[in-house]
Amino acid sequence: MLKTIEWTGQCVRVLDQTRLPGEIVYLDLHDERAVWDAIKRLVVRGAPLIGVSAAYGIYLGVRGASSQAFLRRLDEVCDYLATSRPTAVNLFWAIERVRAAAKAQANAEAVLDEAQSIDREDKAMCLAIGENGIELLLDLKDRSDRQNPSDRPIRILTHCNAGSLATAGMGTALAPIYAGLARGVKFEVFADETRPLLQGSRLTALELREAGVPVTVICDNMAATVLAGGMVDAVIVGADRIAANGDTANKIGTMPLAIVARHFGVPFFVAAPTNTIDPLLSDGSHIPIEQRDAQEITRGFGKATAPDDVGVFNPAFDVTPASLIDAIVTEKRVERGPFGFRR
Amino acid sequence: MLKTIEWTGQCVRVLDQTRLPGEIVYLDLHDERAVWDAIKRLVVRGAPLIGVSAAYGIYLGVRGASSQAFLRRLDEVCDYLATSRPTAVNLFWAIERVRAAAKAQANAEAVLDEAQSIDREDKAMCLAIGENGIELLLDLKDRSDRQNPSDRPIRILTHCNAGSLATAGMGTALAPIYAGLARGVKFEVFADETRPLLQGSRLTALELREAGVPVTVICDNMAATVLAGGMVDAVIVGADRIAANGDTANKIGTMPLAIVARHFGVPFFVAAPTNTIDPLLSDGSHIPIEQRDAQEITRGFGKATAPDDVGVFNPAFDVTPASLIDAIVTEKRVERGPFGFRR
Repeated sequence: MLKTIEWTGQCVRVLDQTRLPGEIVYLDLHDERAVWDAIKRLVVRGAPLIGVSAAYGIYLGVRGASSQAFLRRLDEVCDYLATSRPTAVNLFWAIERVRAAAKAQANAEAVLDEAQSIDREDKAMCLAIGENGIELLLDLKDRSDRQNPSDRPIRILTHCNAGSLATAGMGTALAPIYAGLARGVKFEVFADETRPLLQGSRLTALELREAGVPVTVICDNMAATVLAGGMVDAVIVGADRIAANGDTANKIGTMPLAIVARHFGVPFFVAAPTNTIDPLLSDGSHIPIEQRDAQEITRGFGKATAPDDVGVFNPAFDVTPASLIDAIVTEKRVERGPFGFRR
Repeated sequence: MLKTIEWTGQCVRVLDQTRLPGEIVYLDLHDERAVWDAIKRLVVRGAPLIGVSAAYGIYLGVRGASSQAFLRRLDEVCDYLATSRPTAVNLFWAIERVRAAAKAQANAEAVLDEAQSIDREDKAMCLAIGENGIELLLDLKDRSDRQNPSDRPIRILTHCNAGSLATAGMGTALAPIYAGLARGVKFEVFADETRPLLQGSRLTALELREAGVPVTVICDNMAATVLAGGMVDAVIVGADRIAANGDTANKIGTMPLAIVARHFGVPFFVAAPTNTIDPLLSDGSHIPIEQRDAQEITRGFGKATAPDDVGVFNPAFDVTPASLIDAIVTEKRVERGPFGFRR
């Protein structure tokens, strides 16, 4: 698997995901502004990876501060990095966790320690999500295999990228696939290309191909045909923020996918670490939704694909109501609705 | 409005829609092979316009034939043009109509006459669809305007392009908008960009902007957010083939849009001339669905947006079940389900 982020001892080295699938380019980030920019431009993306990146970014911002200036500088850097993107709660979770640890010890080394802990824990959470998720999928398979040969692949549809490229570890929505591969389970995956930025065709297809999983890229608007045709056993997606009642913000296009999956009776699962849950929000209507630049839609491929001077609406996320989610897989367990997440 | 097709007296002149919105280029087609290629490559597209193009194409193919060879050549050219695209029934309807007229008179001038009749009738059908459709929309507006100011625009969401660029006239799904503009009705339109070939952002946005209608381009996967937000009064789309029971094949992405519209209680309308109805097919499961080249998805913008060697599934159409369609607007009337179309 491609490494997404690494502390080199001097700086944060990140894979530039805007260049995939064509080019494998790593960028060395030396200060908090470079980290802010990498998050904003989606050089690093995926809720868990954004959190890990911000944690290292805080260290880059405070490591040169004098001990007198440390606490002021800490708050400055934390508040600044929190402005990079609004929706994924892991960003704020990681920042507040590092800020608290640093305030307790009032030194930069505590910041680096905490960032490295978050990085390590993210890898462990991915593994645990994978184990919980594969059990859920094998349950489905057992049910359907009463009519089918037992070596039939499990057929998954996913949206955007919630794989290893979205985390410091082996992913969230794709982690059950990697856990299953290790047990000899076969898979076939349909990957929504995921307009406008094509994280599905650029990233999910790439990492699954590298893992040897047969993957078929479709346009987002083709998922309904695939689901209607009985070609999928389950839909699994990641999450950017989950409210206390289970309403889930995830990449734009997730909500209609959940509606269509329910229409055709296909199970719809969310996989995310518990730090993606925001128990302070009672429901999804309170989740801030990032609006992004019009040119991502109208010039996303370096070429004008719409006339000038037309309006564009480009929300980066939508909110899937909890009622359409059959299960939420975390590193702790498989939760089924009605959901009620607490602090 | 941009003219899509014209008989110059010597050849068929068509607007090359693959070059829009950037360039306005007309191509002169001098033989049936050029017409076949123009249909296949989507230089001309939209079910009604495909029918008109094929009708002229037959004339180009038979005009040089000797009178002895005429009937054999007629069948050859008709059968050849019928292989250009499989889903839109207007192609076959136009070909059979021209073939029958030509057989009755056994000369090339009868073919040109029939093609010109089809061209003229298409323009008239668009006008009539517009008049029937605007009545349907004004009914909706009357209902909602009990609570709202009466000059509030009618807010439409559409998918792909079923406007003037899809016909020889002023369109099908967009015709009610043009009919309404002539009566002083205001509109606001959300245009799904319509992956993979972006007929919504390239064509619908262009023709509505030219007509002075405020238009907002969205990715297909954003329509659910727009519908959930109460930003749309009705969804209107065109059709490529309608079965006897009302099941409707239209551009890929139409079916999930209908599911989502129903989920949020937004009316979903189809607008098409009666020659789009195929009463020989009892339901939509019998409609052949064209599969197109993988590179439309993976290299659609002249740049690789997916890794090599991954699978791609690229159906050009899907079938919306009649149960999700609130009305079908033809040049004759507004039909409401349950539908039962006969020869």
